[in-house]
Amino acid sequence: MKITPYHIIGVDLGGTNIVSLFINEKGKVIVRDKRETLTEKGKEKTINQIVESVKTVIERGKKKGISFKSILGIGIGSPGPLNTRKGLIYFAPNLPGWENVPLQNILKKKLKMPVFLENDANAAALGEWWIGAGKDVNNLVLFTLGTGIGGGIIINGEVVHGFRDTAAEIGHMIIHEEGLLCNCGTKGCLEAYASATGVVKRTISAIKDGRKSILTEITNNHLKEITCKMVYETAKKEDELCKWIVEETGRYLGIGIANMVNILNPEIVILAGGMIEAKDLLFNPVIKYAQKYALKSAIEKVKIVPASLGDDAGATGAAATVLKRRGKL
Amino acid sequence: MKITPYHIIGVDLGGTNIVSLFINEKGKVIVRDKRETLTEKGKEKTINQIVESVKTVIERGKKKGISFKSILGIGIGSPGPLNTRKGLIYFAPNLPGWENVPLQNILKKKLKMPVFLENDANAAALGEWWIGAGKDVNNLVLFTLGTGIGGGIIINGEVVHGFRDTAAEIGHMIIHEEGLLCNCGTKGCLEAYASATGVVKRTISAIKDGRKSILTEITNNHLKEITCKMVYETAKKEDELCKWIVEETGRYLGIGIANMVNILNPEIVILAGGMIEAKDLLFNPVIKYAQKYALKSAIEKVKIVPASLGDDAGATGAAATVLKRRGKL
Repeated sequence: MKITPYHIIGVDLGGTNIVSLFINEKGKVIVRDKRETLTEKGKEKTINQIVESVKTVIERGKKKGISFKSILGIGIGSPGPLNTRKGLIYFAPNLPGWENVPLQNILKKKLKMPVFLENDANAAALGEWWIGAGKDVNNLVLFTLGTGIGGGIIINGEVVHGFRDTAAEIGHMIIHEEGLLCNCGTKGCLEAYASATGVVKRTISAIKDGRKSILTEITNNHLKEITCKMVYETAKKEDELCKWIVEETGRYLGIGIANMVNILNPEIVILAGGMIEAKDLLFNPVIKYAQKYALKSAIEKVKIVPASLGDDAGATGAAATVLKRRGKL
Repeated sequence: MKITPYHIIGVDLGGTNIVSLFINEKGKVIVRDKRETLTEKGKEKTINQIVESVKTVIERGKKKGISFKSILGIGIGSPGPLNTRKGLIYFAPNLPGWENVPLQNILKKKLKMPVFLENDANAAALGEWWIGAGKDVNNLVLFTLGTGIGGGIIINGEVVHGFRDTAAEIGHMIIHEEGLLCNCGTKGCLEAYASATGVVKRTISAIKDGRKSILTEITNNHLKEITCKMVYETAKKEDELCKWIVEETGRYLGIGIANMVNILNPEIVILAGGMIEAKDLLFNPVIKYAQKYALKSAIEKVKIVPASLGDDAGATGAAATVLKRRGKL
């Protein structure tokens, strides 16, 4: 008997873009569709965009000779909080109007196919575990470093969801109790220090405290124009303040990583998100401080590496979610 | 065919006592043996004590009509660091002379039975999960609050060991970077603030800074005599300093718990160890601050409770390790 190869569709639903991938069982991308999320046109429109994007990759897959029947299902990586069992999005900060949306059921009806929902950062972690930077390990922690700090945890090859699907909120780990105020309302979270927002806030605060930096010239004293990328680029120009901010950012991230390594002893820690474009400027201090702050027995042989799937991590992991839920991975 | 019930032996190897339990498959204790660990007489003597203790419970079990053949194996909960796969103890701070001891193989030869090794705090967590405070949940975090702070993590009913058996070192989670110096050499670990040692150090330090407390009278100004228990008892007597220390200890533990809840979203957090004798005086502030510092979505419905197996948690969990490794649990 010939065993038919199967295919999966993974969708990354973001506040900026919707990415859909038509993938084979080994993770090879056959067709890719990316379109800007028209969030301002409302929830219905965005849902239709997902449907259109999925139909597009199926059509284009067909033209490449792949049968509809070989598709195991569709995985959606979505911002949350959400309920993976019910396929329900409770709330999505970057998608205005999304409250208690039973996305899984809606898409199932419209697309006549099994649909599975996963948190976007968990999906990215699962994608990296499946065919990315963590493809040879059983235990990993992924940090997403962007406007905020999120994460995904894989233990024994499975995503850790926790009791009510809120696990891996590693940006809200307190590393300096009663320290800087975080967006969540608590003081001292890792995110308040080491997210892109945290980097910018600490830089502006230091300049206002009298520290000199060429950022004042670059922005013509409009400090609100400072971005995280600008801080990293200015650090390369030997600006003392920016060099210090970058070093401190590495130290804070090193503490967050050391905590996760002491708590879970993963084999690999993967950093993802916009900030990793800074490469060694970010990774060198991060690795140095993670080693300094973690227990030697826990951090020994732990690799700290950049994500390897880039913008496709979420959609790849969403596809892997289908394989997991259908017992194929 | 009649299915024979099976039995297990669990041993908790501690620096103070060796506890052996002869347990049935449902966790009921049939025979218990407790003896003082004669650590000063060396490693060989302690190993012989384990052998004698196990033989004692087997003999007494026999008298109760339980056949040797029904015993599935022996589980040992041991201080570490250790290697659970090889059954090797690398090092044990409270057992002088124990370095690279292949305890599993040694006991297997001496006792002619399968032997399995587990870290003591992991064993306690597994014991509480099996028949203790966490018996109805799949995900839990256990904190052991004693001289130091250790822990055990259960996810989907399995102990989290990590890549190299060092997971759940939750006492060395940094909650105040660059804060109080910890025994591990790093600054700001939870253990430095909230272990019994941390409580005593903070109290002495406050008195030396000029804070008034009746502890100076109680100890006749020998501040070195202050114990953690004394601080809790003095807090009950409305001593302002001790009340503040107890409140702050609850706050630090609340931060540690909030971090674990944000990271793993367990259903239950179990506190074990000597400090839980303080009951509400400990639990009231701990629960208040955990709720304050954790994300609302993560802490909602999470229970924070005392361990229920007391001194038997380690040996019970060591027995459960046998069931796990032999595929019976």
